[in-house]
Amino acid sequence: MTVWISRVPATEARPGPLHGLTMALKDNIDLAGVPTTGGDPRNTVPAARNAFVVDRLVEAGAVPLGKTNLDQYATGLVGTRSPYGACHSVYSAEHISGGSSAGSAVAVASGEVDFALGTDTAGSGRVPAAFNGIVGIKPSKGLVSTSGVIPACRSLDCVTVFARTVATARRAFDVMVDFDAADPYARELPRAAPLSGVPRIGVPDRPLGLDPLHEKAWAEALDRAAEVGAVVPVDVGALLETADLLYSGPWLAERWLAFGDKLDDDPAVDPTVRSIVRRGAGLTASETFAGFDRLAELRRQSEPLWAVVDALLLPVTESHPTLAEVAADPVGVNSRMGRFTNMVNLLDLCAVAFPGPLREDGLPFGVQLLAPAGHDDLVIDLASRWCGEEEILLAVAG
Amino acid sequence: MTVWISRVPATEARPGPLHGLTMALKDNIDLAGVPTTGGDPRNTVPAARNAFVVDRLVEAGAVPLGKTNLDQYATGLVGTRSPYGACHSVYSAEHISGGSSAGSAVAVASGEVDFALGTDTAGSGRVPAAFNGIVGIKPSKGLVSTSGVIPACRSLDCVTVFARTVATARRAFDVMVDFDAADPYARELPRAAPLSGVPRIGVPDRPLGLDPLHEKAWAEALDRAAEVGAVVPVDVGALLETADLLYSGPWLAERWLAFGDKLDDDPAVDPTVRSIVRRGAGLTASETFAGFDRLAELRRQSEPLWAVVDALLLPVTESHPTLAEVAADPVGVNSRMGRFTNMVNLLDLCAVAFPGPLREDGLPFGVQLLAPAGHDDLVIDLASRWCGEEEILLAVAG
Repeated sequence: MTVWISRVPATEARPGPLHGLTMALKDNIDLAGVPTTGGDPRNTVPAARNAFVVDRLVEAGAVPLGKTNLDQYATGLVGTRSPYGACHSVYSAEHISGGSSAGSAVAVASGEVDFALGTDTAGSGRVPAAFNGIVGIKPSKGLVSTSGVIPACRSLDCVTVFARTVATARRAFDVMVDFDAADPYARELPRAAPLSGVPRIGVPDRPLGLDPLHEKAWAEALDRAAEVGAVVPVDVGALLETADLLYSGPWLAERWLAFGDKLDDDPAVDPTVRSIVRRGAGLTASETFAGFDRLAELRRQSEPLWAVVDALLLPVTESHPTLAEVAADPVGVNSRMGRFTNMVNLLDLCAVAFPGPLREDGLPFGVQLLAPAGHDDLVIDLASRWCGEEEILLAVAG
Repeated sequence: MTVWISRVPATEARPGPLHGLTMALKDNIDLAGVPTTGGDPRNTVPAARNAFVVDRLVEAGAVPLGKTNLDQYATGLVGTRSPYGACHSVYSAEHISGGSSAGSAVAVASGEVDFALGTDTAGSGRVPAAFNGIVGIKPSKGLVSTSGVIPACRSLDCVTVFARTVATARRAFDVMVDFDAADPYARELPRAAPLSGVPRIGVPDRPLGLDPLHEKAWAEALDRAAEVGAVVPVDVGALLETADLLYSGPWLAERWLAFGDKLDDDPAVDPTVRSIVRRGAGLTASETFAGFDRLAELRRQSEPLWAVVDALLLPVTESHPTLAEVAADPVGVNSRMGRFTNMVNLLDLCAVAFPGPLREDGLPFGVQLLAPAGHDDLVIDLASRWCGEEEILLAVAG
């Protein structure tokens, strides 16, 4: 499979908190001197400078090793929509890697780098983490600059980080968070107080309709949740309805605005990406405002949830499709893949995806913890506790 | 002139903080048992219940006396776009009352009621205050419920209050602020700390191109500002550019979505409102997102301002047109009327408009103080100080 779109020679690491860590960059993020293809080989002009967040990481000691494969223009959750070739899970040559940050997740899972940057508009920073058994932090919107990143939906896009442990992902995350006044969607958020007492972990109060292999792993994950915190069954109906809105609502037009001019009949264009995003051209302004009104209603409906839980636990996906299943139904399989991820940016939540129990067939099963924007540290803390890393750190410290 | 679209018999006042105060309601706000015309006489069905905010005011002791004339569907800043007839300033039969909350402002200025509700999307709660020598409070977006109000731009609309003094407007405002979970755009804002020390009042660092009579009054207003606080010249370029965006950008489509179906060729439809809002039908979703991107950039550019000032002083309008001038150029005159008001909701600011020095021709000249959302009490405090009401209150208290 094609993990890398381009490689660069390792430079000497600067001193800093990330000294000696290697990183991969999803190829929609600028690295000076290398083209940012966005998965479209026609984009051959080298980037003049690093993306804001790449500068921060390099200054902190990280060493970039190259640019990774992705669903073209970050439009997909599968990892197969690339003229550079599809990616598959490091656990199975038959099963998809997830996307759109496919190569970044695979590069981390296979040990080629210590961490990697992805982006996440609909779930692209979490689905490939789940399908490759690694950690993916999806920061609150605006917390990490998107200057120097090819937009998908500018108002929703987030830069994310993948690593094999919560601790490594957090080291990178801590460096990535830096207010960038040149990014109009950047914001400074007050950081929520650290968790005290027993965390209240919300879980869906009704079945989610998971694939049977996923379902069994999910049942085990619920047991683990009860060890990590107090489990609170909650209604997630408004969240799941919001997830549907991402592609039934107006946001496709944001992709059309960002890169619609690239979606001509050239063979370099992924036909599925083209057919989906072209629908954005036909949407009207009043449909857009109607979508925002609906989103405002759903956000309001979802708010009471956050009064009774500190974080919400969900599976990342409902199943783990094969490459063949995606080829047979490229749009349908992809849509179902976003059921539990699409709403996170629309509802202004932060998230961390991390490995839950393995499935009976040996494939990884990813779960995610969600919380309102600004509670990034809280969900990262909880993930760390879940994964047993906190105890390890305490043991080392002791 | 037609101030009232409908009158209702006075009911007995309930005990409460507003006991004995009479009020008028702009006729886009529901009063149970009376049609809410929105300035369109075809809307004849009586409202089933009071708007949320009307309920709050009645419970607090205010007595509604009726519904007031407005620019049809709150689309205008002139007060002439109504099939019920134009309004004029209480100071001059030749000069416009301002709109869209025309009748509400006139009813207050002429002493027919103690206070009145308006709405403000582009300036409709401030322009008619300025043209009738009264006070208009434009709360932060979402602070006052819009449930039971005909929408103009749902994401921007605010319910406002007019009174002859800051103190009376504030009494009503304090009752009006109440979180309404049924309004998806309602929000609970932390209230900013009260002003301490000498307030820093921003003023534009370059000429504003006012009408000569306005210009002289503005010069006197700047002198008064220097008595009330420390004057800080600031660049208001990003604010004025944002004001242009309201009608050049996508927001017309929000009006089209709200009441476009009413804008047929019936003679009850105001032809200017029809011609303007129909433009909203042709806007696309990608133009909408491009408008949001531009707004995000302008908001970012405008932000440094708020680090150096507590409030920004601006005139409400650049001139005070006559009815004849509006008739000769209904769209152009109206557009210029919003130069200093249109951006306030787009940039998520709160505002209070109040009388500055009279013009040499005896017409009123309105000024406004603006601050970021949540600073409502601050601008109201400052307006109170400016108008000398604070001293009066202190004298009474002493």
